This record gives sequence, C-alpha cells and structure tokens, in this order.
Amino acid sequence: MNAIGVDVGGTKIAAGVVTPQGRILDEVRYPTPHSPETLIENVAKAIKEVRDGHEVGGVCLAVPGLILASENKVIFSANLHAIEGIPLKDELESKIGLPLSIENDGNAAAWGEFRFGAGSEADHLVFVALGTGVGGGVITDGVLMRGAQGSGGELGHVTIQATGPRCACGNHGCLEALASGTAIGRRARERAVEQPDSALGRLAMRRQVLGEDVTELAGEGNEVALSVLDETGRWLGVGLAGFVNVFNPEVVAVGGGAMEAGELILEAARREVLLRARPPSRDLAEVKVATLGPKSGVLGAAALARDEFSGEYLLGG
Amino acid sequence: MNAIGVDVGGTKIAAGVVTPQGRILDEVRYPTPHSPETLIENVAKAIKEVRDGHEVGGVCLAVPGLILASENKVIFSANLHAIEGIPLKDELESKIGLPLSIENDGNAAAWGEFRFGAGSEADHLVFVALGTGVGGGVITDGVLMRGAQGSGGELGHVTIQATGPRCACGNHGCLEALASGTAIGRRARERAVEQPDSALGRLAMRRQVLGEDVTELAGEGNEVALSVLDETGRWLGVGLAGFVNVFNPEVVAVGGGAMEAGELILEAARREVLLRARPPSRDLAEVKVATLGPKSGVLGAAALARDEFSGEYLLGG
Repeated sequence: MNAIGVDVGGTKIAAGVVTPQGRILDEVRYPTPHSPETLIENVAKAIKEVRDGHEVGGVCLAVPGLILASENKVIFSANLHAIEGIPLKDELESKIGLPLSIENDGNAAAWGEFRFGAGSEADHLVFVALGTGVGGGVITDGVLMRGAQGSGGELGHVTIQATGPRCACGNHGCLEALASGTAIGRRARERAVEQPDSALGRLAMRRQVLGEDVTELAGEGNEVALSVLDETGRWLGVGLAGFVNVFNPEVVAVGGGAMEAGELILEAARREVLLRARPPSRDLAEVKVATLGPKSGVLGAAALARDEFSGEYLLGG
Repeated sequence: MNAIGVDVGGTKIAAGVVTPQGRILDEVRYPTPHSPETLIENVAKAIKEVRDGHEVGGVCLAVPGLILASENKVIFSANLHAIEGIPLKDELESKIGLPLSIENDGNAAAWGEFRFGAGSEADHLVFVALGTGVGGGVITDGVLMRGAQGSGGELGHVTIQATGPRCACGNHGCLEALASGTAIGRRARERAVEQPDSALGRLAMRRQVLGEDVTELAGEGNEVALSVLDETGRWLGVGLAGFVNVFNPEVVAVGGGAMEAGELILEAARREVLLRARPPSRDLAEVKVATLGPKSGVLGAAALARDEFSGEYLLGG
C-alpha cells in the first residue's frame, strides 16, 4: 500500500505520498504555524491535499521532540512549543479519516535511511542528523530502537565532554553542544574574534557568522573555516566512536543541514572513530554521508505508517 | 530444559546447571589457566563435572572480551589473552558432546539480570558492571542487543570526558576510565597524596590503596573515602544519563565488584542522571543495584543457551 509521511519541522510541514519502494508520488509543503490549533489544521490540510487522487493506507507524523508513545503526544520540543501536549492523533484521525501514528523525527529519518538510503544494505544502522541541534535514531537487527516510551534514540544528548560547553538542553558537553550546526557557528565566531584579519573575522564585522558561512568559506579552501569543520568533525567522531562500541553497526550515516560540508567534517570524524572505537566494531562500521537529504523524514515516516497500518488496510479492503 | 552457563573470568571459571526458572542446581569452580590448551581443558572439565547427573540441552560460555560471533571467537581480551583467537566452540563441542555458544560476559550478565534479576519486570534494561573495568549489556524490547558482529554493548568504552584520564583501552575519558573500580583506586591514591594525614593517606604509606579500601573506609563514615565514591558516582551518572537518553529503559541496573559500595555510589549517579537525562526517559528510568551479584554471568549464559538450543533439544528428544 501507499502511505503518507509527514515531516513536521520548525519552519515547514512536508507531506508526501510514498510507495512501498520509497518513491514519492506527490508532495506538498505548508508553513509551520506556531499555535496549536492552526498547526493541526495545516497538517490536516497538507495530508488531505497530498492524498488527493491516491489510495493511501495510513499516515505517520515525524515530529520534532520527545514523544510519549502511549499518549501519542510530544512532551517537549525545543523548536516547536505549539506541538507540546496536543492530542495530535485523535484530532488528526477524526479530521482525515486515516489511521495515524507519531514518531520522533530523528527516528523516522533513521528509518528512512535504513529502508531506502545509506543503510538499505545494513541490518544495524546508526543515523545522526547535524542541524541546529543533533538528532538521530538507531536500527538494531532490523528493528527501530524506540525504548520503553518511544523516546529512545536521543543521540544528541549523550555527554562526550562533561565539562564542555553548555547545550541547548541545559547540560554541558552533549554531542549536540559540540557537533551541531550551532556549534560550528559558535566555534567560527570564536575564531573570528581570535583572528580578526581572517575571512571569518572580516565577515564577523558585518554580521553574525553562521554555520553555513563556514561551509562556504571552507569550500573555497579557507584554512580557518576548514579547521573549524575539522574540529567539529573530531568531536562528532568522539560521539560516533561511542555509538560504534555500543551498537556495533555496519553503517553510521550522518545527515542534516551541516552535512553540506560532507567530507570536510566526516574525514576528521572517521579519524577519531579509528582512534576511539574498538575492533571488530571499529573495522566494520562505515561512516558515511546519509543519502536521502531532507527527504529522509517523509520517506521514513511513510514506511513506518505502512509497517504499522498495512494489516488494517488489508482487513479494511 | 536445563542448560549450563559458564562464566569464564580472569581468575576463575564458574559453571552451573540452571533450570528454566533460574535456579542453580549444581555449580563448580576451577581456576582460570592462562594457556590456551589448559584453558579449554579446564572449561571442558568444569562442564563435564557440573553436568554429571543432570539432563542438559546446551551450554553458553560467557567470555571476557570482544567477540566475533560469526567465528565464535574472542578477538581481544584485556585480562585473559589466552582466550584470544582460540576455536572455543569447535573444540569444546567435540569434547563435551553438547551444543555450545559464546557470548560476551557483559551481555550474558545483562541477560541474567533481565531474566531473573533487577530487570525481570522490564522490557528494556541497561546493565552496567563496575569491576576492574566497566562492562555491560543492553536489552531493548526484550531482545539482547548484540550488534552486527556480536560485539555490541561495550558500554564501558563510550567517551564521557574526551580530555579525561587515559583508559586501559588506550583512549581518554571512557566511562571505564572514570567510573571503574580501578578509577576508584586511582582517585583514592590522588587524595592520599593531597591529604597525607587522612586515613587514606596513612594507608597509602603502608601499601597501595585499592578500590575495596575506599568502600571499607566509606562504610565507616570516612569523609575522604565518601567523597571519592561520590565523585565516582557522578561520573557514572554522566554515562548512565547518556544511556537513559539513548535507550529509554525502565531499569538501569549497576552490578560488579564496585557495587559493594552500593548506594554510596548510586545516589550520586542518580543525581547526575536527573540533571543530564531528558524527560520522559529521565523520569521512567529506575537506577538500582543489580540483584544477582556474581551469579549473573552463569545465570544469563544458561538462559541464553536454553533460548538458543531448546529447539535442537526438543528435536533430539
């Protein structure tokens, strides 16, 4: 059956009708409203619009935040407070007349990469998304690791340097605090202050330096920008090495916006994994760029909906 | 069926015949020889001796080291080099005439705690063993997490302080380097130097201070020893918080020799978990002392043997 995956982001809602083979037949985008009522309304509109003309068996919503699966609710969302605590499943199911489930966006994207992307040949996949924050998900022996409440897979909030910089979550030294796009920007602004004559320093006189600026300058061969990405990659590698030791995966896929920098980050990460991970896990794990880009959420969510609802669909005809 | 679990440790081999309900019917112990031939011989002797008079369907060996499941071999063992690379399964099966499997000792002990101990009410369990090193294992949704090669679950070698002290594995700032029995001893010796008039300082004049000394002194209310355990507990908690965020388990059970200190370590660990882990995982996870003590390896290995070989046993009559 076809299914609909919806990726609810901080700025936009993307909904797609996806075939069992992972082909997106139709896709729509809506802006993300930041009030609970209009949020549910826009999600419902996106689903109805994209569904038009397709036979669809179910929907899964990839949501940005910590979920409590038993209540089909988001407990906490750093970038989308409007989604916290609202009865997504009940309200949406009654509006759209399709069975609907909810999944953390990192987990959904991991499932997308597992089924259709960087992990499609693997049984064990660690997926890490480097964006404003760091998200992720883990597949172990073909199963998405959700934990007891559906809030497992929070790979961005493992501590890799307990005395390190403060994280958005309030703690210190989380992987997110050291290897996110936000961390790249922070590191670049520090370098700009230290080296005011560098390209980063000159840029910082005009406006706030962002992670994207670093990737752009590094692409032009700028040494300071390259060293910022290398340092970020090393910290990423510290976290990935732990995941390799714990999960012993065939593939570690890294996605998210910061992966625009690709190998400029990953090469350093691989060096650190080789230093810190242990054989045989170290020698097996292939650390690579995720292949689905921003589509991983829609694709993964749709695959999850299909897995969950194909029985109901068949029963219902 | 009954099964035999064998816990191969750095100093002794313990073999037990275990019922499906986790009762040990018989148990024997042999010293661990440190040559490959006599090691296999003693394991075979222990199995034959303990089997005498019991109907048994299979054996599982809990081994101290990183395993490569496809080859039934130990790749690396910090404390028992004699076990590295030897054909345990083939040689032992031909000697004892029973089907035999091999499992990492941390994973086997985790399975023991899951089936019969601290995790027997849970579906998701993180087990951490604090001994000379730090081992462990993870059960997620009722399944022992082995990874692609059977070498997953290396919880002692996640980095929690990248710039931290050197670990036995060669890296810096692993959980093992900061929260093992060895780390307790190292920390105590540092305090002894700083405070030569303390009880630890006076002890250090006579002989090397060990982790056990700290637990003993702390039990008598000694402030310096208590602060060493508290500091160790905080570091343990940094690691546990990451596991809580990643695995979202109902139970985190801590065992191993250093758990003689029990709450003197765990109380501080819980404080750190509350600081660093995120809801809802943080509020669900119960951090407690493992309940099987040194029997977890034998019990877990036997349960694994039963799970793996009960089909063969039934077929064979």
